[in-house]
Amino acid sequence: MKRDIDDLMQERGLSAAIVLQGEHQSPTFRYLTGPRTHLRGIVVWRPGAKPYLVHHAMERDSAAATGFDLGDYGSLGWMKMLEQEGNQVKATARLIHAVLERLKIRGRVLVDGVAQVGWYYHVLNHLSEIDRDIEIAEDQDPGLFELARSTKDPEEVTTVRTVASACERAYARVRSIIQGARLEGKKLRDREGWVTIGRLRREVRRIFFEAGLVEPHGNIIAMGRDAGVPHNEGNDDDVLEEGCPIVIDLYPAQENGGYYFDVTRTYCVGRASKELKDLHALVRDAVARTVDRLAVGTPGRVYQENVCDLFEAHGHRTIRQDERVEEGYVHGLGHGIGLEVHERPRLSAAMNPDLILPGSLFTVEPGLYYPSRGLGVRIEDVIYAHHDGSFENLTHVPYELEIAPA
Amino acid sequence: MKRDIDDLMQERGLSAAIVLQGEHQSPTFRYLTGPRTHLRGIVVWRPGAKPYLVHHAMERDSAAATGFDLGDYGSLGWMKMLEQEGNQVKATARLIHAVLERLKIRGRVLVDGVAQVGWYYHVLNHLSEIDRDIEIAEDQDPGLFELARSTKDPEEVTTVRTVASACERAYARVRSIIQGARLEGKKLRDREGWVTIGRLRREVRRIFFEAGLVEPHGNIIAMGRDAGVPHNEGNDDDVLEEGCPIVIDLYPAQENGGYYFDVTRTYCVGRASKELKDLHALVRDAVARTVDRLAVGTPGRVYQENVCDLFEAHGHRTIRQDERVEEGYVHGLGHGIGLEVHERPRLSAAMNPDLILPGSLFTVEPGLYYPSRGLGVRIEDVIYAHHDGSFENLTHVPYELEIAPA
Repeated sequence: MKRDIDDLMQERGLSAAIVLQGEHQSPTFRYLTGPRTHLRGIVVWRPGAKPYLVHHAMERDSAAATGFDLGDYGSLGWMKMLEQEGNQVKATARLIHAVLERLKIRGRVLVDGVAQVGWYYHVLNHLSEIDRDIEIAEDQDPGLFELARSTKDPEEVTTVRTVASACERAYARVRSIIQGARLEGKKLRDREGWVTIGRLRREVRRIFFEAGLVEPHGNIIAMGRDAGVPHNEGNDDDVLEEGCPIVIDLYPAQENGGYYFDVTRTYCVGRASKELKDLHALVRDAVARTVDRLAVGTPGRVYQENVCDLFEAHGHRTIRQDERVEEGYVHGLGHGIGLEVHERPRLSAAMNPDLILPGSLFTVEPGLYYPSRGLGVRIEDVIYAHHDGSFENLTHVPYELEIAPA
Repeated sequence: MKRDIDDLMQERGLSAAIVLQGEHQSPTFRYLTGPRTHLRGIVVWRPGAKPYLVHHAMERDSAAATGFDLGDYGSLGWMKMLEQEGNQVKATARLIHAVLERLKIRGRVLVDGVAQVGWYYHVLNHLSEIDRDIEIAEDQDPGLFELARSTKDPEEVTTVRTVASACERAYARVRSIIQGARLEGKKLRDREGWVTIGRLRREVRRIFFEAGLVEPHGNIIAMGRDAGVPHNEGNDDDVLEEGCPIVIDLYPAQENGGYYFDVTRTYCVGRASKELKDLHALVRDAVARTVDRLAVGTPGRVYQENVCDLFEAHGHRTIRQDERVEEGYVHGLGHGIGLEVHERPRLSAAMNPDLILPGSLFTVEPGLYYPSRGLGVRIEDVIYAHHDGSFENLTHVPYELEIAPA
């Protein structure tokens, strides 16, 4: 949580953090400054002190709303620096240096922000050259802001619940479309015509629009063989077909860089084959066993190990056995969600230092994939670790595989 | 244009470029790989050779669709690297090094991509340590990909026109709401109630939704004093008021990291004061004079100088006189648009090396701001420099200031 930042900085021997936002949304900047549509600049965060924000005069209203100490580019002499240095890279280093000097910061400084990495590499190198008292600190894993952001306070969870409820409506809409349509041969049709993947995507998009949400990373509605390739987003032209698995993975977020939710269900129009039903039951069992065993303070990788044990015991190959596996269980078990769709803690195995902590908000999403047989199943729920050590499943979407058409 | 990349690399003495995409949209990665919803990884671009893409096996379908040479993390031995190096930063440097070695790349390498800059700073430092034959090149200004992307080919412009036409519909909708409403005292009301800024924003959002567009940076619909602060997005609760300027600045984009458009108009419900009409006429004159004088091969800063001349001759203070100015003309004249809302060429003065080139696609957006008097006016058009040296204004939205209610 935000209140952990200062302690973490002291534990990690950091005198300050520089958190920037330019052309692109920078989740940590948003985390610190709040949800402001128009605000770029550089936050300097020091333990125990009011944060300092460098901003553009054009954005002085958003800047003032942060409550931070403010310095605008003009007053800091930006254009003079640009003229003297002759280029943007050096002038940016000079500006950051001037701010650090004004705030009397030296020593180990953390840098966070989403921007053009090649460009900032040179900015930070110039900064190190200008000021030998500043060290651009290499962070631990998980990073300081990753760790702070990974534990959500109750207000953040309240926000996330609103995104969750739009997801519930989206899945309900998909089910009701299937239930209101009829099979013609093996394909699904209703009064609007063939029911396609593209049609489902449009309906989902409209529900999120009405809820003030967007889908910055799109979504996955993939059938049959495509459902067997986890990040295949599906083919809009495919008509829903009896007996085929349809993996529906939705991860909308509030507009303007807000909070995400992330759910997956696997549906099948009409009757599923025994093979598909067995896969689905096993994946569902993997979710249930994981959720039952969750405990605060345990490493995220343990749950991936358990799921690999389960799947391997049922004869499936897993990524633990071979990182190149493409059939069987081919990915990690889950990830944190928040201002990004993939945050900490990770519930994957290899070299994963993350712990489940009070406040952790994360997905549990096992899957089994057999694209060569036209099969893919994934089920994904979002779990919140309350501060009293109990766990709550925030996902209220039925698990049922088979949806009967009219 | 994309076909310029290889020549630019040779001119700049670069042996390769590394272009990455992780959690966040990286416009240059999108530019090179095409519009794929689910694709992360690292593109290695070499002059005259097929690009190489490092990708996740889960995204093998999107990766294959690029037509690039492919290597997935698993086959490259990612997990072994992670185990050996003990952390993600060093393992990522090791992976990039392995790919460069496999492709026999040495010398000056450019790095582009939008990601966490503090984290990649250390990745690139480790890469330089591992491989002394690799130099992370500091680019010129404008950057190589900024320059290539700044000149649009006809296909890109065709796409941009579709976004422009949704903007036309959005402004038409705003005008028709005002024209269909009545003044009650000085405030605007229709059958849905008071006509607020929030209402206009919802209507605009719906039009963009129907057109398959999103507003990744929000928009500006700001009235009176707020219109006088260029990046104040406006207050949703404000009811439209007779005689007040309303600055409407819309910059939607295609979903999933596509092309932007960017228009501004200043409207006023009913009659405007002489002062507001004069400001509007002068800003409109500044647009017209700029567009009339445009010539390929000229520096972008010249047009900013001309507009400053014009405004200063009319007694307005400008940013050229004082970078801290908050009343008068307080910003640059324009910017390129494309896969980002702010690209090259810039039409601003200080230290701006950009030229108007055949294929440039850019805004012209002078404004005059007097927040202390409740006034702000901005007009923004998008201009395309055809390859024959002619200029086309892609913005078909009426300039009229006064909109009469019913």
